[in-house]
Amino acid sequence: MRISELSAKSGVAIPTIKYYLRESLLHQGQQTAATRAEYDESHLRRLRLIRALLEVGKLPVASIKKVIAAVEDESLPVHEMLGTAHYALSPAVEPEPGEDWQIARDHVDRLIADLGWDIAPHAPTRDELAQTLVRMRQLGLHIDLAPYAEAAQKLVSEVEMDTVPFHGPRDAAVEALVLGTVLYGRAFDALRRMAQESESARRLSL
Amino acid sequence: MRISELSAKSGVAIPTIKYYLRESLLHQGQQTAATRAEYDESHLRRLRLIRALLEVGKLPVASIKKVIAAVEDESLPVHEMLGTAHYALSPAVEPEPGEDWQIARDHVDRLIADLGWDIAPHAPTRDELAQTLVRMRQLGLHIDLAPYAEAAQKLVSEVEMDTVPFHGPRDAAVEALVLGTVLYGRAFDALRRMAQESESARRLSL
Repeated sequence: MRISELSAKSGVAIPTIKYYLRESLLHQGQQTAATRAEYDESHLRRLRLIRALLEVGKLPVASIKKVIAAVEDESLPVHEMLGTAHYALSPAVEPEPGEDWQIARDHVDRLIADLGWDIAPHAPTRDELAQTLVRMRQLGLHIDLAPYAEAAQKLVSEVEMDTVPFHGPRDAAVEALVLGTVLYGRAFDALRRMAQESESARRLSL
Repeated sequence: MRISELSAKSGVAIPTIKYYLRESLLHQGQQTAATRAEYDESHLRRLRLIRALLEVGKLPVASIKKVIAAVEDESLPVHEMLGTAHYALSPAVEPEPGEDWQIARDHVDRLIADLGWDIAPHAPTRDELAQTLVRMRQLGLHIDLAPYAEAAQKLVSEVEMDTVPFHGPRDAAVEALVLGTVLYGRAFDALRRMAQESESARRLSL
Protein backbone atom coordinates (compact mmCIF):
# COMPACT_ATOMS: atom_id res chain seq x y z
CA MET A 1 0.00 0.00 0.00
CA ARG A 2 1.06 3.65 -0.46
CA ILE A 3 1.80 5.94 2.51
CA SER A 4 -1.64 7.59 2.18
CA GLU A 5 -3.36 4.23 2.63
CA LEU A 6 -1.03 3.33 5.52
CA SER A 7 -2.05 6.60 7.17
CA ALA A 8 -5.77 5.99 6.60
CA LYS A 9 -5.64 2.41 7.90
CA SER A 10 -3.50 3.17 10.94
CA GLY A 11 -5.04 6.50 11.87
CA VAL A 12 -1.51 7.99 12.06
CA ALA A 13 -0.99 11.27 10.15
CA ILE A 14 1.46 11.19 7.19
CA PRO A 15 3.90 13.72 8.76
CA THR A 16 4.02 11.54 11.90
CA ILE A 17 4.71 8.42 9.82
CA LYS A 18 7.53 10.29 8.06
CA TYR A 19 8.94 11.29 11.45
CA TYR A 20 8.90 7.64 12.60
CA LEU A 21 10.69 6.66 9.36
CA ARG A 22 13.39 9.32 9.88
CA GLU A 23 13.84 8.23 13.52
CA SER A 24 14.02 4.55 12.45
CA LEU A 25 11.09 3.69 14.71
CA LEU A 26 9.33 2.46 11.56
CA HIS A 27 11.24 0.35 9.01
CA GLN A 28 11.45 1.68 5.45
CA GLY A 29 8.96 0.50 2.85
CA GLN A 30 9.87 -1.23 -0.40
CA GLN A 31 11.17 1.51 -2.70
CA THR A 32 9.29 1.22 -6.04
CA ALA A 33 10.34 4.60 -7.52
CA ALA A 34 12.44 7.58 -6.45
CA THR A 35 9.58 9.16 -4.50
CA ARG A 36 7.37 6.16 -3.92
CA ALA A 37 7.45 3.25 -1.47
CA GLU A 38 5.15 0.31 -0.74
CA TYR A 39 4.13 -0.54 2.84
CA ASP A 40 2.58 -3.75 4.15
CA GLU A 41 0.96 -5.34 7.20
CA SER A 42 4.27 -5.24 9.11
CA HIS A 43 4.19 -1.43 8.96
CA LEU A 44 0.62 -1.31 10.20
CA ARG A 45 1.54 -3.64 13.05
CA ARG A 46 4.62 -1.57 13.96
CA LEU A 47 2.56 1.64 13.98
CA ARG A 48 0.13 0.02 16.41
CA LEU A 49 3.09 -0.97 18.63
CA ILE A 50 4.59 2.57 18.52
CA ARG A 51 1.23 4.09 19.43
CA ALA A 52 0.78 1.64 22.30
CA LEU A 53 4.25 2.44 23.66
CA LEU A 54 3.73 6.20 23.25
CA GLU A 55 0.11 6.51 24.34
CA VAL A 56 -0.27 3.68 26.83
CA GLY A 57 3.32 3.18 27.96
CA LYS A 58 4.08 6.95 28.00
CA LEU A 59 7.65 6.06 27.02
CA PRO A 60 9.97 8.77 25.61
CA VAL A 61 11.13 8.32 22.01
CA ALA A 62 14.65 7.38 23.16
CA SER A 63 13.25 4.40 25.11
CA ILE A 64 10.99 3.37 22.23
CA LYS A 65 14.05 3.34 19.95
CA LYS A 66 15.84 0.92 22.28
CA VAL A 67 12.84 -1.39 22.42
CA ILE A 68 12.46 -1.43 18.64
CA ALA A 69 16.21 -1.89 18.06
CA ALA A 70 16.00 -5.00 20.27
CA VAL A 71 13.04 -6.28 18.24
CA GLU A 72 15.02 -5.87 15.01
CA ASP A 73 18.52 -7.05 16.02
CA GLU A 74 18.45 -10.73 15.03
CA SER A 75 21.96 -11.38 16.41
CA LEU A 76 20.99 -11.06 20.08
CA PRO A 77 20.16 -14.28 21.97
CA VAL A 78 16.50 -14.39 23.04
CA HIS A 79 17.02 -13.83 26.78
CA GLU A 80 19.36 -10.85 26.15
CA MET A 81 17.01 -9.45 23.54
CA LEU A 82 14.15 -9.58 26.04
CA GLY A 83 16.44 -8.09 28.70
CA THR A 84 17.37 -5.18 26.44
CA ALA A 85 13.72 -4.41 25.81
CA HIS A 86 12.95 -4.88 29.48
CA TYR A 87 15.72 -2.61 30.77
CA ALA A 88 14.67 0.14 28.34
CA LEU A 89 11.36 0.17 30.21
CA SER A 90 13.12 0.82 33.54
CA PRO A 91 13.49 4.46 34.59
CA ALA A 92 17.11 5.67 34.76
CA VAL A 93 18.21 5.68 38.40
CA GLU A 94 21.60 6.87 39.69
CA PRO A 95 22.95 5.46 42.97
CA GLU A 96 23.00 8.14 45.66
CA PRO A 97 25.94 8.79 47.97
CA GLY A 98 25.53 7.77 51.59
CA GLU A 99 24.73 4.94 53.94
CA ASP A 100 20.95 4.95 53.27
CA TRP A 101 21.58 3.92 49.68
CA GLN A 102 23.91 1.07 50.60
CA ILE A 103 21.47 -0.28 53.22
CA ALA A 104 18.62 -0.20 50.68
CA ARG A 105 20.67 -1.76 47.90
CA ASP A 106 21.85 -4.55 50.27
CA HIS A 107 18.20 -5.10 51.23
CA VAL A 108 17.28 -5.51 47.54
CA ASP A 109 20.16 -7.90 46.79
CA ARG A 110 19.32 -10.02 49.86
CA LEU A 111 15.63 -10.12 48.91
CA ILE A 112 16.48 -11.35 45.40
CA ALA A 113 18.82 -14.00 46.79
CA ASP A 114 16.23 -15.14 49.36
CA LEU A 115 13.58 -15.42 46.64
CA GLY A 116 15.97 -17.40 44.43
CA TRP A 117 15.25 -15.05 41.53
CA ASP A 118 17.60 -15.10 38.53
CA ILE A 119 18.36 -11.38 38.03
CA ALA A 120 21.47 -10.02 36.28
CA PRO A 121 23.92 -8.22 38.65
CA HIS A 122 23.67 -5.10 36.43
CA ALA A 123 19.84 -5.14 36.12
CA PRO A 124 18.61 -1.54 36.51
CA THR A 125 15.63 -2.78 38.53
CA ARG A 126 18.01 -3.36 41.50
CA ASP A 127 18.85 0.35 41.75
CA GLU A 128 15.28 1.32 40.89
CA LEU A 129 13.89 -0.66 43.83
CA ALA A 130 16.72 0.58 46.11
CA GLN A 131 15.79 4.20 45.31
CA THR A 132 12.16 3.54 46.27
CA LEU A 133 13.27 1.90 49.53
CA VAL A 134 15.44 4.94 50.36
CA ARG A 135 12.44 7.24 49.84
CA MET A 136 10.20 5.00 51.97
CA ARG A 137 12.74 4.94 54.78
CA GLN A 138 13.23 8.73 54.64
CA LEU A 139 9.47 9.26 54.82
CA GLY A 140 8.98 6.77 57.63
CA LEU A 141 6.90 4.31 55.59
CA HIS A 142 6.64 0.73 56.76
CA ILE A 143 8.59 -1.56 54.43
CA ASP A 144 7.53 -5.17 53.93
CA LEU A 145 8.20 -6.24 50.37
CA ALA A 146 7.63 -9.98 50.85
CA PRO A 147 3.87 -9.94 50.04
CA TYR A 148 4.57 -7.75 46.98
CA ALA A 149 7.29 -10.07 45.70
CA GLU A 150 5.02 -13.08 46.23
CA ALA A 151 2.13 -11.43 44.34
CA ALA A 152 4.46 -10.35 41.51
CA GLN A 153 5.87 -13.85 41.11
CA LYS A 154 2.40 -15.41 41.04
CA LEU A 155 0.96 -12.96 38.47
CA VAL A 156 4.03 -13.09 36.25
CA SER A 157 4.37 -16.88 36.20
CA GLU A 158 0.66 -17.73 36.04
CA VAL A 159 -0.66 -15.00 33.73
CA GLU A 160 1.78 -12.62 32.05
CA MET A 161 4.54 -14.89 30.82
CA ASP A 162 2.02 -17.29 29.30
CA THR A 163 1.25 -14.54 26.77
CA VAL A 164 4.90 -14.41 25.62
CA PRO A 165 5.73 -16.77 22.70
CA PHE A 166 9.29 -17.57 23.84
CA HIS A 167 9.91 -20.10 21.11
CA GLY A 168 7.99 -18.27 18.38
CA PRO A 169 9.11 -15.32 16.22
CA ARG A 170 11.56 -12.97 18.02
CA ASP A 171 9.62 -9.80 17.34
CA ALA A 172 6.39 -11.32 18.65
CA ALA A 173 8.13 -12.33 21.91
CA VAL A 174 9.51 -8.83 22.54
CA GLU A 175 6.25 -7.15 21.59
CA ALA A 176 4.27 -9.40 23.91
CA LEU A 177 6.75 -8.86 26.77
CA VAL A 178 6.81 -5.08 26.38
CA LEU A 179 3.08 -4.71 25.89
CA GLY A 180 2.31 -7.12 28.74
CA THR A 181 4.75 -5.30 31.04
CA VAL A 182 3.26 -1.89 30.28
CA LEU A 183 -0.42 -2.79 29.95
CA TYR A 184 -0.75 -5.30 32.80
CA GLY A 185 1.27 -2.83 34.89
CA ARG A 186 -1.18 -0.05 34.13
CA ALA A 187 -4.18 -2.30 34.70
CA PHE A 188 -2.83 -3.44 38.06
CA ASP A 189 -2.01 0.12 39.12
CA ALA A 190 -5.58 1.25 38.37
CA LEU A 191 -6.98 -1.78 40.22
CA ARG A 192 -4.76 -1.02 43.22
CA ARG A 193 -6.07 2.54 43.44
CA MET A 194 -9.64 1.23 43.09
CA ALA A 195 -9.03 -1.27 45.89
CA GLN A 196 -7.68 1.58 48.03
CA GLU A 197 -10.78 3.71 47.41
CA SER A 198 -13.02 0.78 48.32
CA GLU A 199 -10.99 -0.09 51.41
CA SER A 200 -11.03 3.57 52.48
CA ALA A 201 -14.84 3.60 52.18
CA ARG A 202 -15.07 0.36 54.17
CA ARG A 203 -12.79 1.52 56.99
CA LEU A 204 -14.59 4.87 57.24
CA SER A 205 -17.91 2.93 57.26
CA LEU A 206 -19.65 5.04 54.61
CA MET B 1 14.31 29.11 61.28
CA ARG B 2 15.20 31.50 58.42
CA ILE B 3 14.87 30.48 54.77
CA SER B 4 18.64 29.87 54.52
CA GLU B 5 18.47 27.30 57.32
CA LEU B 6 15.35 25.72 55.80
CA SER B 7 17.31 25.36 52.56
CA ALA B 8 20.35 23.86 54.31
CA LYS B 9 18.28 21.38 56.35
CA SER B 10 16.03 20.29 53.46
CA GLY B 11 18.64 20.28 50.71
CA VAL B 12 16.25 22.35 48.55
CA ALA B 13 17.77 25.47 46.95
CA ILE B 14 16.38 28.87 48.07
CA PRO B 15 15.06 29.84 44.58
CA THR B 16 13.20 26.50 44.48
CA ILE B 17 11.70 27.12 47.94
CA LYS B 18 10.56 30.58 46.75
CA TYR B 19 8.98 28.98 43.68
CA TYR B 20 7.07 26.52 45.90
CA LEU B 21 5.90 29.45 48.07
CA ARG B 22 4.68 31.40 45.00
CA GLU B 23 2.89 28.30 43.67
CA SER B 24 1.32 27.65 47.11
CA LEU B 25 2.89 24.19 47.24
CA LEU B 26 4.59 25.33 50.44
CA HIS B 27 2.63 27.31 53.04
CA GLN B 28 3.94 30.76 53.98
CA GLY B 29 6.17 31.18 57.02
CA GLN B 30 5.41 33.40 59.99
CA GLN B 31 6.14 36.96 58.83
CA THR B 32 8.44 38.58 61.42
CA ALA B 33 9.46 41.64 59.40
CA ALA B 34 8.75 43.05 55.91
CA THR B 35 11.43 40.89 54.28
CA ARG B 36 11.81 38.15 56.87
CA ALA B 37 9.80 35.03 57.73
CA GLU B 38 10.24 32.17 60.17
CA TYR B 39 9.83 28.55 59.06
CA ASP B 40 9.39 25.45 61.19
CA GLU B 41 9.27 21.63 61.13
CA SER B 42 6.01 21.69 59.12
CA HIS B 43 7.86 23.38 56.25
CA LEU B 44 10.67 20.84 56.35
CA ARG B 45 8.11 18.04 56.33
CA ARG B 46 6.20 19.60 53.41
CA LEU B 47 9.41 20.01 51.40
CA ARG B 48 10.15 16.28 51.90
CA LEU B 49 6.61 15.51 50.66
CA ILE B 50 6.98 17.75 47.59
CA ARG B 51 10.31 16.15 46.73
CA ALA B 52 8.86 12.67 47.12
CA LEU B 53 5.94 13.53 44.83
CA LEU B 54 8.19 15.21 42.26
CA GLU B 55 11.16 12.83 42.32
CA VAL B 56 9.55 9.52 43.21
CA GLY B 57 5.99 10.05 42.05
CA LYS B 58 7.03 11.95 38.91
CA LEU B 59 3.82 13.98 39.24
CA PRO B 60 3.45 17.28 37.34
CA VAL B 61 3.16 20.45 39.45
CA ALA B 62 -0.57 20.76 38.65
CA SER B 63 -1.22 17.33 40.22
CA ILE B 64 0.95 18.11 43.23
CA LYS B 65 -1.09 21.28 43.78
CA LYS B 66 -4.32 19.24 43.90
CA VAL B 67 -2.85 16.78 46.38
CA ILE B 68 -1.61 19.56 48.65
CA ALA B 69 -4.87 21.51 48.41
CA ALA B 70 -6.65 18.36 49.63
CA VAL B 71 -4.20 18.06 52.52
CA GLU B 72 -4.91 21.64 53.56
CA ASP B 73 -8.68 21.96 53.02
CA GLU B 74 -10.07 21.14 56.48
CA SER B 75 -13.71 21.41 55.32
CA LEU B 76 -13.66 18.22 53.22
CA PRO B 77 -14.90 14.99 54.88
CA VAL B 78 -12.09 12.44 55.27
CA HIS B 79 -13.23 10.00 52.56
CA GLU B 80 -13.69 12.82 50.02
CA MET B 81 -10.38 14.39 51.01
CA LEU B 82 -8.62 11.07 50.41
CA GLY B 83 -10.55 10.67 47.14
CA THR B 84 -9.47 14.10 45.92
CA ALA B 85 -5.85 13.26 46.60
CA HIS B 86 -6.32 9.85 45.07
CA TYR B 87 -7.97 11.07 41.86
CA ALA B 88 -5.20 13.66 41.36
CA LEU B 89 -2.84 10.71 41.09
CA SER B 90 -4.86 9.19 38.24
CA PRO B 91 -3.79 10.08 34.70
CA ALA B 92 -6.36 12.11 32.74
CA VAL B 93 -8.20 9.76 30.37
CA GLU B 94 -10.86 10.82 27.86
CA PRO B 95 -13.49 8.27 26.77
CA GLU B 96 -12.97 7.33 23.11
CA PRO B 97 -15.77 7.17 20.54
CA GLY B 98 -16.79 3.70 19.35
CA GLU B 99 -17.99 0.29 20.41
CA ASP B 100 -14.59 -0.91 21.75
CA TRP B 101 -14.69 1.74 24.45
CA GLN B 102 -18.23 0.88 25.56
CA ILE B 103 -17.42 -2.84 25.74
CA ALA B 104 -14.32 -2.14 27.84
CA ARG B 105 -16.09 0.30 30.14
CA ASP B 106 -18.96 -2.18 30.67
CA HIS B 107 -16.34 -4.83 31.46
CA VAL B 108 -14.82 -2.55 34.13
CA ASP B 109 -18.18 -1.67 35.69
CA ARG B 110 -19.19 -5.35 35.79
CA LEU B 111 -15.85 -6.34 37.34
CA ILE B 112 -16.28 -3.73 40.10
CA ALA B 113 -19.84 -4.88 40.79
CA ASP B 114 -18.80 -8.55 40.86
CA LEU B 115 -15.99 -7.76 43.31
CA GLY B 116 -18.39 -5.78 45.49
CA TRP B 117 -15.96 -2.84 45.53
CA ASP B 118 -17.25 0.55 46.68
CA ILE B 119 -16.06 2.87 43.87
CA ALA B 120 -17.67 6.23 43.02
CA PRO B 121 -19.50 6.26 39.64
CA HIS B 122 -17.32 9.21 38.53
CA ALA B 123 -14.00 7.69 39.72
CA PRO B 124 -11.39 8.36 36.99
CA THR B 125 -9.92 4.89 37.57
CA ARG B 126 -12.95 3.42 35.72
CA ASP B 127 -12.03 5.18 32.46
CA GLU B 128 -8.33 4.63 33.11
CA LEU B 129 -8.78 0.86 33.31
CA ALA B 130 -11.19 0.90 30.33
CA GLN B 131 -8.54 2.62 28.19
CA THR B 132 -6.00 -0.05 29.07
CA LEU B 133 -8.51 -2.80 28.21
CA VAL B 134 -9.17 -1.16 24.82
CA ARG B 135 -5.42 -1.16 24.06
CA MET B 136 -5.08 -4.78 25.17
CA ARG B 137 -7.98 -5.83 22.97
CA GLN B 138 -6.62 -3.90 19.97
CA LEU B 139 -3.24 -5.54 20.40
CA GLY B 140 -4.67 -9.01 20.85
CA LEU B 141 -3.51 -9.43 24.46
CA HIS B 142 -5.21 -11.99 26.64
CA ILE B 143 -7.33 -10.23 29.30
CA ASP B 144 -7.96 -11.86 32.66
CA LEU B 145 -8.12 -9.23 35.36
CA ALA B 146 -9.47 -11.46 38.15
CA PRO B 147 -6.04 -12.53 39.52
CA TYR B 148 -4.87 -8.89 39.39
CA ALA B 149 -7.93 -7.62 41.24
CA GLU B 150 -7.51 -10.35 43.87
CA ALA B 151 -3.82 -9.50 44.38
CA ALA B 152 -4.60 -5.76 44.57
CA GLN B 153 -7.31 -6.30 47.18
CA LYS B 154 -5.06 -8.49 49.31
CA LEU B 155 -2.05 -6.11 49.23
CA VAL B 156 -4.18 -3.02 49.83
CA SER B 157 -6.20 -4.44 52.72
CA GLU B 158 -3.37 -6.36 54.41
CA VAL B 159 -0.43 -4.00 53.95
CA GLU B 160 -1.00 -0.57 52.42
CA MET B 161 -4.07 0.70 54.21
CA ASP B 162 -2.65 -0.29 57.58
CA THR B 163 -0.10 2.50 57.08
CA VAL B 164 -2.86 5.14 56.73
CA PRO B 165 -3.91 6.79 60.05
CA PHE B 166 -7.60 7.20 59.11
CA HIS B 167 -8.61 8.53 62.49
CA GLY B 168 -5.46 10.55 63.13
CA PRO B 169 -4.52 14.00 61.77
CA ARG B 170 -5.98 14.71 58.30
CA ASP B 171 -2.73 15.72 56.70
CA ALA B 172 -0.96 12.58 57.93
CA ALA B 173 -3.71 10.39 56.41
CA VAL B 174 -3.45 12.02 52.98
CA GLU B 175 0.33 11.98 53.02
CA ALA B 176 0.43 8.31 53.94
CA LEU B 177 -2.16 7.44 51.27
CA VAL B 178 -0.39 9.38 48.53
CA LEU B 179 3.09 8.22 49.46
CA GLY B 180 1.93 4.63 49.90
CA THR B 181 0.12 4.70 46.55
CA VAL B 182 3.13 6.06 44.69
CA LEU B 183 5.93 4.25 46.50
CA TYR B 184 4.36 0.81 46.92
CA GLY B 185 3.23 1.13 43.30
CA ARG B 186 6.78 1.80 42.15
CA ALA B 187 8.18 -0.97 44.34
CA PHE B 188 5.66 -3.47 42.99
CA ASP B 189 6.32 -2.41 39.40
CA ALA B 190 10.08 -2.98 39.83
CA LEU B 191 9.42 -6.35 41.50
CA ARG B 192 7.11 -7.35 38.62
CA ARG B 193 9.82 -6.61 36.05
CA MET B 194 12.34 -8.53 38.15
CA ALA B 195 9.97 -11.51 38.35
CA GLN B 196 9.59 -11.33 34.56
CA GLU B 197 13.34 -11.37 34.04
CA SER B 198 13.70 -14.35 36.36
CA GLU B 199 10.79 -16.22 34.77
CA SER B 200 12.23 -15.50 31.30
CA ALA B 201 15.57 -16.98 32.39
CA ARG B 202 13.77 -20.03 33.86
CA ARG B 203 11.66 -20.69 30.75
CA LEU B 204 14.67 -20.28 28.45
CA SER B 205 16.59 -22.65 30.80
CA LEU B 206 19.71 -20.49 31.12
